[in-house]
Amino acid sequence: MQHCDILISADWCIPVEPTTTVLDKHSVAITDGRVIDLLPTDDALRYYEPGAAIERPGHVLIPGLVNTHTHAAMTLFRGFADDLPLERWLREAIWPAEAQFVGPEMVRDGTRLAIAEMLLSGCTCFSDQYYYPEIVAETAADLQMRAMVGTPVIEFATQWAASASDCLSKGADLVHDRYADHPLISSCFAPHSAPTVSDAAFAELRVIADQLDKRIQIHLHESVGEITESVKDTGKRPIERLSELGLVNASLMAVHAVHLTGEEITLFADTGVVVAHCPRSNLKLADGIARIHDLLVANITVGLGTDSAASNNAIDMPGEMRTAALLSKARSEDATSLPASAALRMATIEGAKTLGLDADIGSIEAGKWADLVCIDLMHLNSQPVYDPLSQIVYTVLPQQISDVWVAGRHHIENGRLMHIDENEIIRRTAEWRERIGQSTSLGPV
Amino acid sequence: MQHCDILISADWCIPVEPTTTVLDKHSVAITDGRVIDLLPTDDALRYYEPGAAIERPGHVLIPGLVNTHTHAAMTLFRGFADDLPLERWLREAIWPAEAQFVGPEMVRDGTRLAIAEMLLSGCTCFSDQYYYPEIVAETAADLQMRAMVGTPVIEFATQWAASASDCLSKGADLVHDRYADHPLISSCFAPHSAPTVSDAAFAELRVIADQLDKRIQIHLHESVGEITESVKDTGKRPIERLSELGLVNASLMAVHAVHLTGEEITLFADTGVVVAHCPRSNLKLADGIARIHDLLVANITVGLGTDSAASNNAIDMPGEMRTAALLSKARSEDATSLPASAALRMATIEGAKTLGLDADIGSIEAGKWADLVCIDLMHLNSQPVYDPLSQIVYTVLPQQISDVWVAGRHHIENGRLMHIDENEIIRRTAEWRERIGQSTSLGPV
Repeated sequence: MQHCDILISADWCIPVEPTTTVLDKHSVAITDGRVIDLLPTDDALRYYEPGAAIERPGHVLIPGLVNTHTHAAMTLFRGFADDLPLERWLREAIWPAEAQFVGPEMVRDGTRLAIAEMLLSGCTCFSDQYYYPEIVAETAADLQMRAMVGTPVIEFATQWAASASDCLSKGADLVHDRYADHPLISSCFAPHSAPTVSDAAFAELRVIADQLDKRIQIHLHESVGEITESVKDTGKRPIERLSELGLVNASLMAVHAVHLTGEEITLFADTGVVVAHCPRSNLKLADGIARIHDLLVANITVGLGTDSAASNNAIDMPGEMRTAALLSKARSEDATSLPASAALRMATIEGAKTLGLDADIGSIEAGKWADLVCIDLMHLNSQPVYDPLSQIVYTVLPQQISDVWVAGRHHIENGRLMHIDENEIIRRTAEWRERIGQSTSLGPV
Repeated sequence: MQHCDILISADWCIPVEPTTTVLDKHSVAITDGRVIDLLPTDDALRYYEPGAAIERPGHVLIPGLVNTHTHAAMTLFRGFADDLPLERWLREAIWPAEAQFVGPEMVRDGTRLAIAEMLLSGCTCFSDQYYYPEIVAETAADLQMRAMVGTPVIEFATQWAASASDCLSKGADLVHDRYADHPLISSCFAPHSAPTVSDAAFAELRVIADQLDKRIQIHLHESVGEITESVKDTGKRPIERLSELGLVNASLMAVHAVHLTGEEITLFADTGVVVAHCPRSNLKLADGIARIHDLLVANITVGLGTDSAASNNAIDMPGEMRTAALLSKARSEDATSLPASAALRMATIEGAKTLGLDADIGSIEAGKWADLVCIDLMHLNSQPVYDPLSQIVYTVLPQQISDVWVAGRHHIENGRLMHIDENEIIRRTAEWRERIGQSTSLGPV
């Protein structure tokens, strides 16, 4: 008998890599926060002497879901300004509200709310883009949530930084250095969008990102308006401009990428650009429906993101996965597009690839972190179970997420947060609601 | 003090009619299963002496959601054949499975499963279209769920009926007569689709439906294939053919209506045809995205439907409402399209109008049945609450449905079924899963 810290046994397991095949009655052995084995439960019970044995009949075990794009702190603006187009939403509602309320305390509280919501819905890693990234990193580390923290880069002055250049130096000091070897926290740069960053700042960013070997995530070709504005101001589409600035390469993570020409898809494929697809946000802001089917045909890596709760309005990865699968069929006029197996991959291993973290997360394989999710398929709305994979993508609701582990830490058990004080989060959120909601110049539009 | 049977008090109430305004701290008084009053809680506590007083702080009270189109029994085929286009899905998976398994027992068990799922997700009325409608009616009446039971009409022989003509006479005898005055059960005719019903049967249907004063619901212009087939076989688009047969009028409920020309939209508007919009099913089968924005601009009544769990794969009205709101923005390239208030109306009063039941349900008004839903907005994923209406449409998950009443009967309390044995339903569903799943000629495709 060999020792392991935890042995989780479920009726079904979908490791995603090397296969999305559904394995019946398998167990995952975990030691020191990492998966050390995946094997049939009958064998596991003979070979392993676990510190803790967890049995989940009627459940399916999958890798933790990877949210490749959000702005966690903005969860405090959820439902604050709905049913508006992107430009008006940003300029008339979100940016003024941010100017008034964003600060370290707001970012901490908003990020805590978002992390709790993500864990409860089976997400074990998020890629963030917001002011005070050092607070985002500190909060994620404190709550023991996995995060890729993006340092925002934006030309205009904010509470956090005076200029794009100031963003870059602050990010390099506060995030990239301090968390260089952290097991849960990684980092990247996150220029807001092409129109909000100057050529000079992009050039500076390119040097720093190369030096630190960090990815660059940017809202890119999200709306027709963004492209039109760029063409008017610079004579170039944003991708063309970034390409000339030397930023279109395998370190680039294009967030949204709703409006792409065939040539732009080919450019992405040739250069290794990865895409963060945020279907619900794109719908809600009437940005359009991304050509995911075409991106996949071109072998471009596509991960899934929720975007912020201010434009979604949920940070619900199972829902995002289902929406992606459904939308791709309609967009491509092909019901076989993005079948359940591809949708689950997009929400797990492909998301990990999008973030450059696939050596460590995204599948249930020996050596990877034990970022795991257990889902109860015995709920009425997932019955009967002909195919657990189909049920996960097309039927599962967050209430069915029974257990979540991040690096072997049992964050959710029986659908409840184990280490995070939910009542305290709700209390703090209510305080922010009073402050933000009572602002006379703002409020629901 | 005046007596009432039940007094429900919530932090917020959205009556939908006469207004979708959010009312703070209001109470609904119920007697004999009907709403008798809606008034501020302070006043209610002075005027009413209730048999049962129910207080729901942090909750919002809305009318029960109306599912205008499903095939409840098909819930037993949920996830049985996914990621297939409509025609293949029907001809290679669903119809063969139906030929083998459909019968009174299957319809009873599948309908029970669907009713439980609908109640748990806040749906208090469903419009059904399936074989053995007398069993659907009996099951709904037995479980005290509100239903409009559609008698299917289809040319080819099924287990239930030998021909379209046989469908009509069976439906008239078994459904329309027996439940003529039932408080929960109403009925309509439900020819499957234009290509599956002959001109002669449509003519016969028209006479019977007129005699009985019943609506006719039909899958209409769901897919391009359906229209192409009709043009090939008859030289006419289905709507044109139905129009010539005298069926395009205010009694017609067009289910799906994904592919409509401008002229067809005008025809619907001029003749009073109503539409059942099933966005998730349309996406999943790659049928397309209906022009809901244009239908609403033309003042056409549009209700929401889940379609069956075999093509969705959920019977989750809150999810359908959100999907409808999000899709309409993308389809019309207008983020102000189908705002939260219009989406909630579509899921309630407009659904009731679609079924011709708006005198009795669809809003919280004195005289209407007390079909009510209470939603807990204190869950993390609906926090903070700037606008309860926005939270209902864009954030609410079925797990937040705390209470559901149908005609004053308290079906769901604290998120649990009060009068329906959930374990028994799951046990019976598992039996069907064994039978259907083990069929060698079928199984997941």
